[in-house]
Amino acid sequence: MSFTISLPSDAHDALIQARIDSKTKPPGALGMLERLALQAARALGPEQPRVERPRLLVFAGDHGVSDEGVSIAPSIVTTQMVSNFLAGGASVNVFARQAGLPVTVVDCGIRVPVEDERIINHRLGAGTAAIHLAPAMSEAAMQEGLANSRRLIGTLKAEGTNVIALGEMGIANTTASSALLAALTGAPVSDCTGRGTGIDAPTLLRKKAVIRQALQRHQTALDQPETLLATLGGFEIVGLVGAILAAAEAGMLVLIDGFIVTVAAAVACAMVPQARAWLIFSHCSDERGHQLALDWLEAEPLLSLGLRIGEGSGAALALPLLHAALAFYNDMATFEQAGVTV
Amino acid sequence: MSFTISLPSDAHDALIQARIDSKTKPPGALGMLERLALQAARALGPEQPRVERPRLLVFAGDHGVSDEGVSIAPSIVTTQMVSNFLAGGASVNVFARQAGLPVTVVDCGIRVPVEDERIINHRLGAGTAAIHLAPAMSEAAMQEGLANSRRLIGTLKAEGTNVIALGEMGIANTTASSALLAALTGAPVSDCTGRGTGIDAPTLLRKKAVIRQALQRHQTALDQPETLLATLGGFEIVGLVGAILAAAEAGMLVLIDGFIVTVAAAVACAMVPQARAWLIFSHCSDERGHQLALDWLEAEPLLSLGLRIGEGSGAALALPLLHAALAFYNDMATFEQAGVTV
Repeated sequence: MSFTISLPSDAHDALIQARIDSKTKPPGALGMLERLALQAARALGPEQPRVERPRLLVFAGDHGVSDEGVSIAPSIVTTQMVSNFLAGGASVNVFARQAGLPVTVVDCGIRVPVEDERIINHRLGAGTAAIHLAPAMSEAAMQEGLANSRRLIGTLKAEGTNVIALGEMGIANTTASSALLAALTGAPVSDCTGRGTGIDAPTLLRKKAVIRQALQRHQTALDQPETLLATLGGFEIVGLVGAILAAAEAGMLVLIDGFIVTVAAAVACAMVPQARAWLIFSHCSDERGHQLALDWLEAEPLLSLGLRIGEGSGAALALPLLHAALAFYNDMATFEQAGVTV
Repeated sequence: MSFTISLPSDAHDALIQARIDSKTKPPGALGMLERLALQAARALGPEQPRVERPRLLVFAGDHGVSDEGVSIAPSIVTTQMVSNFLAGGASVNVFARQAGLPVTVVDCGIRVPVEDERIINHRLGAGTAAIHLAPAMSEAAMQEGLANSRRLIGTLKAEGTNVIALGEMGIANTTASSALLAALTGAPVSDCTGRGTGIDAPTLLRKKAVIRQALQRHQTALDQPETLLATLGGFEIVGLVGAILAAAEAGMLVLIDGFIVTVAAAVACAMVPQARAWLIFSHCSDERGHQLALDWLEAEPLLSLGLRIGEGSGAALALPLLHAALAFYNDMATFEQAGVTV
């Protein structure tokens, strides 16, 4: 599947920068919010850029490798957390409510599905294959996953959404993400692999061994980002990659969350580099490898709160900063309006 | 004037921590927001802590030292920016509106006052004396300033406010703040002094020379924080110190803003160390000396956005994170409620 992604127009950059510099503040004094305002005004239009009908999408999937004891929790917790998202009780729910951000759950292939009509069904199977033993999924399954996300983004676009935030749930998905990151960047497995939800030292050693085994087994299949994604990824990670590429294709801004979503963003940008310009990096978590992934993307995260939670929690926490950037761009007085004579 | 400040009760710490740990997340996974929730639940009560009637106070004052060319702007800009605050056009206004935070301007002694009944009149004079030539103000003026703030905080307390955010305006007030910081910490002037709103290298040299001259001239008067404040401070900085101490005395949480408010917090904590526990540090700005002041206070700022603006802008931007911390504490599901079996 090929995505046709344009860069946001820079035709109005002079206008946008002049507007930013006309505000009653020293030049550059709003720091990262000025760079965010420039990015957002390019993407959403220079006149009155507004966040319209923002939506947070949580992609869920299970991982065969979870049976290797690489996580503190068994796969059934993915199912339980999906129910928690639907009940509105999870971290992402409370932060999204604060931010006025409706949460939609997408089942990309958890082992034990939840019967609930609010869930979007993008199931590609009941969990991936264990990546140290076999490719996570077929090329066809991956293509189907990308197409599913593109369809979903098309629906949101038609409803008027111009900003999406992304999250995920899937026991053992830091294992898949660390493998993807190591394969994509060539960085050592130990630099790409962290404690996820809080595994102990022996479990971390096992997790790294499983990742090295996966990289070894599939080494001839890792040179292209798409095959890398099918081989080492997860169903929810494919969903994220598809959503990122489709949203960029549709001209939406995308709030990237924690480690897993950032790795999905890295894969997406390896597939189509133009996607990068549509992404806002919400935060840097405490997960080892996250900073490395952000550096690889040359990304400057808005927040650094020591989170280790995923789900889209950090993306929801960052949305108020996007609102703030647009509020200063749209509503702050100019020197002329305010009669300030610096 | 003496303030009687209690530490927030730690009697419910076990209950509060158990509540935090019962939520559907790995232990500690919300990072700084967990520490913020603990601090806020101690201060506001462990059952259903809520931010009530939050207010942002902008203290404004002018500085005699501004005539030495230590800033990019003349003192009249203080007056113009006060008018901008009243018109709702400044950075702090747009961010405070986003955060649902009413802004009140307190004139502590600007050179050219603004006639507007919305301004709270705490004037101690028409600007301080130039600190490299004389003490900024008398001991009596400082005491009056502290008393003014205490009265204002008493009014807010009576109205039900339990969280205040602080900001400031005053051309050349980074000069006064750097002098205070150097005197308080003993750190070199060059580590405490930055470019403020964006002065060039020659102006920065002049600014440091003026500060060194002030420290030299008043060296025998700098051993007590109160005399240090009167000697090197500003009318708006005295207002800030009084507001911090009075709010802590009244059991309110205080959102500390940028460099100047952080230095005021350092002086306040030097006067009454118990005040520290009531303070939330909103952000670390790009101003040289801010990180040093935060380190001296052993403070962990919530945001680091590269701001160089003051006014209370960063404090307004941080309020949503306090709301988020309380939302997870009050509203997130427990493992038991959600049926999650990790």
